Amino acid sequence: MTVTNAINHTLKIRLTQSLSIALFVLFSVLGVHAADPLPSWNAGPAKQAILDFVKSTTSPGSENHVPPAERIAVFDNDGTLWSEQPLYFQALFIFDRIKQLAPQHPEWKAQEPFASVLKGDTKTALAGGEHALIEMAMATHAGTTTEEFHQLAMEWISTARHPETGKLLTEMVYQPMLELLTYLRENGFKTYIVSGGGIEFMRPWTERIYGIPPEQVIGSSIKTKYELREGQPVLARLPEMNFIDDKEGKPVGINQHIGRRPIAAFGNSDGDFQMLEWTTAGDGARLGVYIHHDDAKREYAYDRNSHIGKLARGLDESSERGWIVVSMKNNWKTIYP
Amino acid sequence: MTVTNAINHTLKIRLTQSLSIALFVLFSVLGVHAADPLPSWNAGPAKQAILDFVKSTTSPGSENHVPPAERIAVFDNDGTLWSEQPLYFQALFIFDRIKQLAPQHPEWKAQEPFASVLKGDTKTALAGGEHALIEMAMATHAGTTTEEFHQLAMEWISTARHPETGKLLTEMVYQPMLELLTYLRENGFKTYIVSGGGIEFMRPWTERIYGIPPEQVIGSSIKTKYELREGQPVLARLPEMNFIDDKEGKPVGINQHIGRRPIAAFGNSDGDFQMLEWTTAGDGARLGVYIHHDDAKREYAYDRNSHIGKLARGLDESSERGWIVVSMKNNWKTIYP
Repeated sequence: MTVTNAINHTLKIRLTQSLSIALFVLFSVLGVHAADPLPSWNAGPAKQAILDFVKSTTSPGSENHVPPAERIAVFDNDGTLWSEQPLYFQALFIFDRIKQLAPQHPEWKAQEPFASVLKGDTKTALAGGEHALIEMAMATHAGTTTEEFHQLAMEWISTARHPETGKLLTEMVYQPMLELLTYLRENGFKTYIVSGGGIEFMRPWTERIYGIPPEQVIGSSIKTKYELREGQPVLARLPEMNFIDDKEGKPVGINQHIGRRPIAAFGNSDGDFQMLEWTTAGDGARLGVYIHHDDAKREYAYDRNSHIGKLARGLDESSERGWIVVSMKNNWKTIYP
Repeated sequence: MTVTNAINHTLKIRLTQSLSIALFVLFSVLGVHAADPLPSWNAGPAKQAILDFVKSTTSPGSENHVPPAERIAVFDNDGTLWSEQPLYFQALFIFDRIKQLAPQHPEWKAQEPFASVLKGDTKTALAGGEHALIEMAMATHAGTTTEEFHQLAMEWISTARHPETGKLLTEMVYQPMLELLTYLRENGFKTYIVSGGGIEFMRPWTERIYGIPPEQVIGSSIKTKYELREGQPVLARLPEMNFIDDKEGKPVGINQHIGRRPIAAFGNSDGDFQMLEWTTAGDGARLGVYIHHDDAKREYAYDRNSHIGKLARGLDESSERGWIVVSMKNNWKTIYP
């Protein structure tokens, strides 16, 4: 490009930008509104409650108006923004890491839960419940630097597929929730993930998949330690829990990271109960939403008796607490993009 | 207002907004630039290095261009954004809290360091160093809910005055740094506080004073616990350290809260050394800045031998590491607003 061309090029971009802004302003003045912001949601009380909440908190002059800085919306991840059956997707990552690291750990062949994973028997591996999962997470998530781990998670998620659908895991996000995230952000909301999953497992890809930047991801974490390696500073990941972002931990994590109470919270399990409770106990308009997995045909149907994403108390108390229960089967036109 | 008036009024606001945007666009296209964005900074290498860094990381087509999402700038608070002599301002808050709580703690009259505080001998109270300070912080910062503590800190800061200048503490922020914060934000940077001070002590007022919202404040913290009190959920503040955001802790805190490495870091003491080291060890253009307190006349002069804000290694290594040392005496036209 010659200098003149470059200047013309820059000018052209600027004029295009000006035109876009001018058109935007024109449409605003004329009051031209966008089409349905939630096209994958069927009309009904659940959709209407969400639309009403956003309108009431963002319309100037509304008695429930909330300044943009306080429009904080928090979302659980597993089962709320993407699927979580037949097991948390992060468990698949853990299993793959165990297989990858096995040559350096010959003792794993005789040591549960690792031995079962290496034999391909993940059901037995997970029989030890949360304790077994944390043990495996420690063994596979520590021992790297934060940047190495970022790279591992990012590479893994780019090809990892679901054991039953064969889809990329990142294709198993919920289209209606993607629309909701966008709709809230377009209305000045800051959208956060508040998940029991690993914070550093999620951060490498949440911006690309959900439009949620790393600083708006809250999750469970292990401790890190600052040190120099060959003169270069690194953060080493240690096999020691730092924080478990689940149940009562969710409001704690929200306070630690955000420092203000959200006005809207979205979850799908009893692990999200306290997050919804904390959010909706504040003054003014509040929105608490449970996604109910009742669609065995298009996704999974589970609630009270599920080993993952158990939803019992949430179902029992939603009505009296004024929380919305979204039926995936009835309220969503489509599940995946 | 009649309905017609209201519509006209709204239309008028919108048209005014359109005009503002149109003028903004026009000036952008014509390349009309604002006046000096850092009027309180004297011309010289330090100011120039900051201007050059911002230009090089934000100009489209620059080889050092950084996308807006990655424009993270971190600032220490005490001694970097406001004064910290003759003692950390949060210590004044702690002393006032001790006096306030004394009736409920008759044992403090005979128990150091509380006894000295109650006698007005803060020097002896602080003789125990960091240990004594943490003990007093625990005793005065725990035992409330997060919302009660927010209220206490906000009320205190609105009237607290400096023991030597008599100014409101919030008037002892540095005018040149306020300009720098604004300048960076106008160039798409996200500005964070990363302080050894208490995260919940700072959050209630950083938005009003620095334009930095609570979710962009990182600091030391005690643990909190989610519980119900008379049916209402609260976060109870516990007398147990959660995180110390100082020295090697600063990069850890940055990673925990932000999840990406900053590209610019500003500090004033060796407690900020690792934050500058971590920030400037990344690829591409990086900016590490030390504020040097060398102005005994307008503020304070201290570095190597100070009991607060000691700066020795930072001074020794800034030159070889390419960090800028800002002389408050020579580089700043004014100190306070």
